Amino acid sequence: MDEADGSESELDRYRRIMLLTDGFSTPFLAKTAISLLRYRQDDIAAVLDATEAGSTAQALFGTGGTVPVVGSLDEAEADALFIGIAPPGGKLPDHWRQIVVSALGRGMDVVSGLHDFLCNDSEFTSAAEKHGCQLIDVRRNTERHTAQHVDFRQGCLRVLTVGHDCSVGKMVTSLETQRVLAERGEDARFVATGQTGIMIAGDGVPIDCVVADFVNGAAESLVQRHEKHDILLIEGQGSISHPSFSAVTLGLLHGCAPDGLIMCYEAGREMVKGLDEIQIPPLQQLVTAYETMAALRNPCRVIGVSVNGRNLSADQTAAECERVSSELGLPACDVYRNGADALADAVLALRGERR
Amino acid sequence: MDEADGSESELDRYRRIMLLTDGFSTPFLAKTAISLLRYRQDDIAAVLDATEAGSTAQALFGTGGTVPVVGSLDEAEADALFIGIAPPGGKLPDHWRQIVVSALGRGMDVVSGLHDFLCNDSEFTSAAEKHGCQLIDVRRNTERHTAQHVDFRQGCLRVLTVGHDCSVGKMVTSLETQRVLAERGEDARFVATGQTGIMIAGDGVPIDCVVADFVNGAAESLVQRHEKHDILLIEGQGSISHPSFSAVTLGLLHGCAPDGLIMCYEAGREMVKGLDEIQIPPLQQLVTAYETMAALRNPCRVIGVSVNGRNLSADQTAAECERVSSELGLPACDVYRNGADALADAVLALRGERR
Repeated sequence: MDEADGSESELDRYRRIMLLTDGFSTPFLAKTAISLLRYRQDDIAAVLDATEAGSTAQALFGTGGTVPVVGSLDEAEADALFIGIAPPGGKLPDHWRQIVVSALGRGMDVVSGLHDFLCNDSEFTSAAEKHGCQLIDVRRNTERHTAQHVDFRQGCLRVLTVGHDCSVGKMVTSLETQRVLAERGEDARFVATGQTGIMIAGDGVPIDCVVADFVNGAAESLVQRHEKHDILLIEGQGSISHPSFSAVTLGLLHGCAPDGLIMCYEAGREMVKGLDEIQIPPLQQLVTAYETMAALRNPCRVIGVSVNGRNLSADQTAAECERVSSELGLPACDVYRNGADALADAVLALRGERR
Repeated sequence: MDEADGSESELDRYRRIMLLTDGFSTPFLAKTAISLLRYRQDDIAAVLDATEAGSTAQALFGTGGTVPVVGSLDEAEADALFIGIAPPGGKLPDHWRQIVVSALGRGMDVVSGLHDFLCNDSEFTSAAEKHGCQLIDVRRNTERHTAQHVDFRQGCLRVLTVGHDCSVGKMVTSLETQRVLAERGEDARFVATGQTGIMIAGDGVPIDCVVADFVNGAAESLVQRHEKHDILLIEGQGSISHPSFSAVTLGLLHGCAPDGLIMCYEAGREMVKGLDEIQIPPLQQLVTAYETMAALRNPCRVIGVSVNGRNLSADQTAAECERVSSELGLPACDVYRNGADALADAVLALRGERR
């Protein structure tokens, strides 16, 4: 058995993935599975949820097309089982232990983004060793060097998504902007910093699990590994104003030294997710805070706004994009509804200025 | 053997400490030993450095009075061996292994602030187990809960030291300000966030070694443990502009939600320590950055300046204090040379405003 670090594994080698969401196929809990269906549909063999067996991913999650939902490991050929949920607390549901052990018994690798590492569980490590397969905890890392204020390659433009809170669409914004730029023939790369992003991209750094002294350094070396590309769309984390997670956000901001930022927010969200009595600061104040902090490391400004309109109608979203665009003087769009063309334009305009 | 966490151990129970600096008794490397001599002199039995045996702490380090420098463990009665150096890289010098094993063989506890944990070394853990004594790695921690934006007790005033760089005197400024306030009869407590501070105070959180997602939470619960006191002087870490350590700094700032900040800097230092080509931003810019970031969590402002004049004469230091005081419109002093009365005054003035 080889216990691989998420940061070094090549998760994109799997071409027949079974996504485990058994009993937890709600949009909030199953966001890892949903994102994998959205961005790696061709690599997904099936979704395993006995309570929804017979359905399709599209019917269950609104994405994933005809990928079948099955009731057991027997019902699809797969080379890896990916834990498809991100539950608060990060623990494996009790009744999943047997599913994980059975998957290992079939020689499948098991990939997890939970805070509780599979490889710290002796039942799992024994089974993996016995059957010659891997347990991959994507949050596990051995990052342990401090940032050196590296001069990144001239010609590698770095764009980081930032947000007014957690879970507002930073990863999706980075992915969608990368997709548009790639479609336009640009050498643009998505750079993952969270467990779901890492499962999609195949590599990355689980930045929220790095020891504090080495957060900036982990982000810096992640960028170094990808600086051969012309444009990096770096997945942001947390928020610089978040009472719980601002350390992660600033370490990432300083470590990757972006040239541009895309400000992501969810229209209508006024309170911090999970801290319901705490008000989120106004967008303009956050733009100033991000630019002030980023400038301590590298010349940088916010170049566009990603509006998450999931609680709005299409018309309301269009009006909100217009409103915020005028308030901040920046292009704005909802990447789910409208695609990321406006943001791709802003990235290319920034590159034009910097040349 | 009990492997204690630094955060939970009671390091102030030791009354006969031997400080190990063998072969490394320079001011830069031995700063842990020097700080313990300065702030816990009555608890120090001896300094162990065979290359300087026969001297006194005062002669060797300029502090510590008649504490003897000895050449072997036999030459003083001690209940604990404290690793007295903070070497770059954080590794135990090779020839110290035998000294640590011998100390454990005598039933002494061994206390270390190194990044390489003693309790991960099987030779040390076996010896500790055999002789019934403790290995205490003060940087080891199991902090794992996220900050909750706690409302701290009204009447607990929180003052954090911040800096323009690492190693400019934040810990000493907090300690000296606490000392003056205590002498004036205030219920003021020093709150430690680094390995040397923890060895001095007896407890604390090694904030730079906490996993990123939990840095803010670790700082928050550290303050909660001490909020029964009227005034907390919280030891700052790093700098908000530091390319390598800003994640630590912001997590601490948001987690402890200070009411006031004391800005610490070393006169004449223009480049980041260890990153010699990187310029430190001007003080006024840093004051703005700290206040902008702190205000995202709690109303807060910089209340005074701690000038480290170690590279200046007394006259030059006085002139520098006057200059910076006028530039920033804040009281300023060198706590080594002048004591911390000006800063204690500023703390009490802040409390007056907040009441």
